[in-house]
Amino acid sequence: MNLKIIFKVLGLLLVVEGFAMLLTSVVALIYGGNDTVAFLISAGINLGIGALITAATWKAKKDIGKREGFIIVTMVWLVFSFFGSLPYILSGSIPRFTDAFFETISGFTTTGSSILNDIEALPHGILFWRSITQWLGGMGIIVLSLAILPVFGIGGMQLFMAEVPGPTPDKISPRITQTAKTLWGIYILFTVLETILLWIGGMSFFDSICHSFTTMATGGFSTKQASIAHWPSPFIQYVITFFMFLAGTNFTLSYMAITGRFSAIFKDEEFKYYSLITLSFSAVITGGLLLSSHLNFEGAFREALFQVVSIVTTTGFATADYLVWPPFLTMLIFALFFFGGSAGSTGGGIKIMRIVVLAKNGYYELKRLVHPRAVIPVKFNRHSVDSKIVTNVLAFFMLYMVIFFVSTILFTLIEPDMESSMGAVATSLGNIGPGLGSVGPAENFYHISPLGKWFLSFLMLLGRLELFTVLVLFSPSFWKE
Amino acid sequence: MNLKIIFKVLGLLLVVEGFAMLLTSVVALIYGGNDTVAFLISAGINLGIGALITAATWKAKKDIGKREGFIIVTMVWLVFSFFGSLPYILSGSIPRFTDAFFETISGFTTTGSSILNDIEALPHGILFWRSITQWLGGMGIIVLSLAILPVFGIGGMQLFMAEVPGPTPDKISPRITQTAKTLWGIYILFTVLETILLWIGGMSFFDSICHSFTTMATGGFSTKQASIAHWPSPFIQYVITFFMFLAGTNFTLSYMAITGRFSAIFKDEEFKYYSLITLSFSAVITGGLLLSSHLNFEGAFREALFQVVSIVTTTGFATADYLVWPPFLTMLIFALFFFGGSAGSTGGGIKIMRIVVLAKNGYYELKRLVHPRAVIPVKFNRHSVDSKIVTNVLAFFMLYMVIFFVSTILFTLIEPDMESSMGAVATSLGNIGPGLGSVGPAENFYHISPLGKWFLSFLMLLGRLELFTVLVLFSPSFWKE
Repeated sequence: MNLKIIFKVLGLLLVVEGFAMLLTSVVALIYGGNDTVAFLISAGINLGIGALITAATWKAKKDIGKREGFIIVTMVWLVFSFFGSLPYILSGSIPRFTDAFFETISGFTTTGSSILNDIEALPHGILFWRSITQWLGGMGIIVLSLAILPVFGIGGMQLFMAEVPGPTPDKISPRITQTAKTLWGIYILFTVLETILLWIGGMSFFDSICHSFTTMATGGFSTKQASIAHWPSPFIQYVITFFMFLAGTNFTLSYMAITGRFSAIFKDEEFKYYSLITLSFSAVITGGLLLSSHLNFEGAFREALFQVVSIVTTTGFATADYLVWPPFLTMLIFALFFFGGSAGSTGGGIKIMRIVVLAKNGYYELKRLVHPRAVIPVKFNRHSVDSKIVTNVLAFFMLYMVIFFVSTILFTLIEPDMESSMGAVATSLGNIGPGLGSVGPAENFYHISPLGKWFLSFLMLLGRLELFTVLVLFSPSFWKE
Repeated sequence: MNLKIIFKVLGLLLVVEGFAMLLTSVVALIYGGNDTVAFLISAGINLGIGALITAATWKAKKDIGKREGFIIVTMVWLVFSFFGSLPYILSGSIPRFTDAFFETISGFTTTGSSILNDIEALPHGILFWRSITQWLGGMGIIVLSLAILPVFGIGGMQLFMAEVPGPTPDKISPRITQTAKTLWGIYILFTVLETILLWIGGMSFFDSICHSFTTMATGGFSTKQASIAHWPSPFIQYVITFFMFLAGTNFTLSYMAITGRFSAIFKDEEFKYYSLITLSFSAVITGGLLLSSHLNFEGAFREALFQVVSIVTTTGFATADYLVWPPFLTMLIFALFFFGGSAGSTGGGIKIMRIVVLAKNGYYELKRLVHPRAVIPVKFNRHSVDSKIVTNVLAFFMLYMVIFFVSTILFTLIEPDMESSMGAVATSLGNIGPGLGSVGPAENFYHISPLGKWFLSFLMLLGRLELFTVLVLFSPSFWKE
């Protein structure tokens, strides 16, 4: 185990986090908030510790094996969340460490569940920091899902070896660097575009930036307690819907679109089903809302589409409280908790790609029953999927469900209501944001006990890192030899 | 497709059902109930139609291929339930066809969900018929799971090719006959033993027979509205607990025990985990009940053990209402809804064998991440499990969960409460009996709308026949060529 390189990477990333804090202190200063000092101190701590660690491990061998990779990935999210909670505590905005850590890991995992009861009362620096944690988290996820997880061989992500041009895939690091740069370019481009459009739509410049950050990360933190419902403007809501949908699309596809290869997009099976699922759920819910409310067609459609896209992409913004809808419609939204965005997007959850592979395999099992001797492979994007990958995807789904059920049961010790329990667990595991019952879109997570907050924080991490990345650290065989 | 043989088998089985009705008419006559005539007419209809069909198809070729097998299995349960509802309707005990069909299919699938509001008011013949439908259903399941499903190759049942001595396994029918005879012998033996013990314990002879029938079938129909809570006698409750546990054990193991091969039992992995799960859930719930109620240790242990064994074996008897327990304990019981008895028992649900294979495979996926080139097969009972079987088991689990979720969502259109909806769907699919919320152990299914009853009936059939057996009939490739 090359411990030195692990520390070196973490040290370097702490420096990055420190610079993000420094940037935020400038924002805080501009708006004249009393939180500027908190950000300067936090930045100092991060830069200091980060620099010390980096200096001490500067001569580390550059070999990053799989095992080092697994440890780094999990540690990055933990260390970022730990140090990232400093500004909340030091500024007094979130005095308790548990709450501050929950808000921070909810940010970096792009979940968007909040413990804040009066968001509008917070200084601009803190609001900006909440948004930037999600934006950085989204950047991390793009690299993770398109460059690191395929190499790890996790849960079918091998199917998404980024087709972005780059050096030979034998060596991990140059490939990661190249892929990351290209995809971050797109990520930044989309963020800028959304900011401009929201600004044109009448949002303040500050709110436009913050919401663009949290949209592209499919994060869902808002600068308003009422989330996007604060802006009744259809234009603003449609813009956000569009960019949420984009953020839930494989970034490799966006890259292809930008480079003019549109045919690749329409051939992509995951994108086809992602669009189909979004549209069909929106259609049914639009119908349901027309029958059960006084909304006109456009209003019902917008409300349905926004909520569906927000949940399927695991963003978690709200323009309506789906808990006051008829139960069947609420349940449709809850079903979407288990879909998640596309693989290679910033979305969390199970992911459409896996759902497609699972559905096809389930259907083929029936064919295999009738023709037991025939070899019937699962096809995805016109390629046969290796049976090992199918097993891996099936195992991922099983683990996801088992973790969901076991966690829900355990969580009833903390939150005795079954529905709230299911909602809190599913939303944390899927990195969505709002849940059901006492943690619905009109509520928040403030009232959950400290133990419950730590538990949900762990689930956010588990879900964000595709379960296996974290769980493998608990396997004895990982630590052997 | 050999249609004639399908009709011949169904015709013969209708005759069997007719004889069961004739037997019941004798019971009705003995107790002098006014339901005797209803049973005689029903028996006449069954025997008449059955004999006609059998005569017309007597010269059918004896080839029963897989496709004929799939059709026969599903049709048997449907035809039995259709004709089995006659006595309820003709006697006026359950006047509406939907209700009568629900009660009958709940019997033959050994589910045990009931629509009856005043069981004690029913004549003895009807009570006996309810019990015998479950007992016959249990007989059907033993043959299905130990002789037919392994040949079909469904969901890992291949692991349980009955090791009962018999002719060569090449030809299906002599093997089925031999296996069935041996295992039915044990089934009947256990039924007789339980009847004697319950009678000694102070139950009436009639109630003893009825409850032995429904225990061995893991059915759960009782002759009392209060279920087993009607008999506070610890002896009776322990006897029923013991036989429920036995009914949830692979009957091949019981065969081994009877023939003196005890070592086989203690080596059997499924039995080990089945015992372990039962004991650990009982232990936790005993502790929980001691903390939250005024029960003494024996009382808490008995209440916990009875409910755990009743649910894990999918019997569904009750001596307590687990819905009034603290939510965490209720959720533990709900978790057991997804375990089910052992493969090769009369229990329904996912089955312990599959859970063990799934858990091992999930753990091995972690190992495979660390050592991607190593071949790490799942072992069960010291044999490597073919990867195709593992995929099949994983697909079964996935389908089970998807059907559970989708059905729950659809069912909220009928029963708008999410918890009741989940409970009704899970208990039907797992062939258990009681659910959650409005269909808990102290309630019944009377208030569910007709559409809801048909929906749940379909789920009972789907669960009982291990999903694939029914679903394959909906696959176009099944009907091709």
